[in-house]
Amino acid sequence: MSLLIVGTLAFDDIETPSGRVEGEIGGSAGYAALAASFCTKTAIVAVVGEDFPKATLDDLSGRGIDLAGVEHAPGKSFRWSGRYHENLNNRDTLDTQLNVLSSFSPKVPEHLRSAETVFLGNIDPVLQAQVLDQLREPRLVACDSMNLWLDIARPALMRVLERVHLLVVNDEEARLLSGQHNIVRAAHAILKMGPQRVLIKRGEYGVIAFEHGSTFAMPAYPLEEVFDPTGAGDTFAGGCIGSLARDGGRVDAASLRRAIAHGSVLASLVVEKFGMRRLWELSGADIEARRQAFLRLTDFHTI
Amino acid sequence: MSLLIVGTLAFDDIETPSGRVEGEIGGSAGYAALAASFCTKTAIVAVVGEDFPKATLDDLSGRGIDLAGVEHAPGKSFRWSGRYHENLNNRDTLDTQLNVLSSFSPKVPEHLRSAETVFLGNIDPVLQAQVLDQLREPRLVACDSMNLWLDIARPALMRVLERVHLLVVNDEEARLLSGQHNIVRAAHAILKMGPQRVLIKRGEYGVIAFEHGSTFAMPAYPLEEVFDPTGAGDTFAGGCIGSLARDGGRVDAASLRRAIAHGSVLASLVVEKFGMRRLWELSGADIEARRQAFLRLTDFHTI
Repeated sequence: MSLLIVGTLAFDDIETPSGRVEGEIGGSAGYAALAASFCTKTAIVAVVGEDFPKATLDDLSGRGIDLAGVEHAPGKSFRWSGRYHENLNNRDTLDTQLNVLSSFSPKVPEHLRSAETVFLGNIDPVLQAQVLDQLREPRLVACDSMNLWLDIARPALMRVLERVHLLVVNDEEARLLSGQHNIVRAAHAILKMGPQRVLIKRGEYGVIAFEHGSTFAMPAYPLEEVFDPTGAGDTFAGGCIGSLARDGGRVDAASLRRAIAHGSVLASLVVEKFGMRRLWELSGADIEARRQAFLRLTDFHTI
Repeated sequence: MSLLIVGTLAFDDIETPSGRVEGEIGGSAGYAALAASFCTKTAIVAVVGEDFPKATLDDLSGRGIDLAGVEHAPGKSFRWSGRYHENLNNRDTLDTQLNVLSSFSPKVPEHLRSAETVFLGNIDPVLQAQVLDQLREPRLVACDSMNLWLDIARPALMRVLERVHLLVVNDEEARLLSGQHNIVRAAHAILKMGPQRVLIKRGEYGVIAFEHGSTFAMPAYPLEEVFDPTGAGDTFAGGCIGSLARDGGRVDAASLRRAIAHGSVLASLVVEKFGMRRLWELSGADIEARRQAFLRLTDFHTI
């Protein structure tokens, strides 16, 4: 297996200025795996309740995504409800129902334990560590996190970071994690915590990536209408890690930049419809067209 | 003459987290002209009081900047006092003393009236219009403005915009001017007001430029320490317009992108020291080194 992703499979109730949906399929592992599946063979470790639609799992399998690590537990699936502000940069979490996630203990099936590349999606860092404990020497461990874990589980997160090669966070999280406001200083502080590379998501402004001796910045694609930002960060991360997994988990300046560009392309597409809908329908031609649009957007020296 | 710049020459009292200076030489025309002077022959139309140092004017002349349009008026020069917040993205204006600026009526000397390229720096739009009235058919009119004029002189500003080819504003101003939050919609609304091109400055996130049929985004250069953001916007604009003036005021996608890159390079340098100090000492090698650093920062397809 090339890429193992641990995270959530969930129902989302989403309200944006463009509309409202209830029980939309989502979750960090869902977005990330679907995004990664354009590049590489992907497996999910997650938990679902009895209410999670078999049709969705069949669709994921149909994309070649290995679901042997998806546990079916009695009870309801994880559910998140949120409302976006008019500017779409902020959102309020209205409700979080952990349900089956509250007693989840991830088990990595034997045939997935030698995964070369691992993406620890945004879940409790204690669970992220449990996944790592079950793996044999992955070549590349990437990790996402969020403010919540910094607030309530910082020691556990810090221990995970020591085992991570690549951290994906947003700028607010980078500042909170490092205690530094300046983003360059924040990144350098994070690089001392374990990761050799940190990718900082800046929402509508794009992403900036730091590794020792090299910095890369990429603007986001300017969209006239962002329909639903849910999962954009997970899609970005999944696209990045999928691209790196395709390269065999080897990361250098060139493969990292290709990966960030690919993740940015997918993130710019997923927000065009509610939930994961746009990801399901995407063709290779759609992706290539947006990649070309990114080249035109950013090129100032080969024109 | 290639480039005519109208704006302010001023004293600034500046307080940033890095330190404090009083009576620092500044003003929109000062920053913009010095930035443009690396590319093209530049002239300033502005007013100074009796207290403005002759040595500074001599230094500007020494850079080949034509000061025939700088009026010497009785009284004190324009003075601005401001304090930056810890995050440097926000500042409070502590005091504004218009002094000689309050009765300023710009007069463009005869030999400057056929300028091909004009930059209307951030002053009262009524004065910007008076400058345009004195010019013969400039090929390229660029304009900067600020929230203040949107608040107290919007009709005058709207009339100026009808005569402008290229508008430079920050994102907050673009939103205020257009009434649109989404930056793409804001830009499209502004393009209906007169300008064929709008450059939207986004502070530490860089710049995004819109023209019909083409969009260009460039990240800012990530700096570990921003010493003083004062004049960064004017320096960016001056660098841009200087580059376009060097191209004879002809603007196409390629010349605009080169110009934005050049402006971004100079803006990333000017903030490294208080006031205009870094601009005075810059060598061509410094500029080229930062341009190369920008290429490394943004390149994801030729690596």
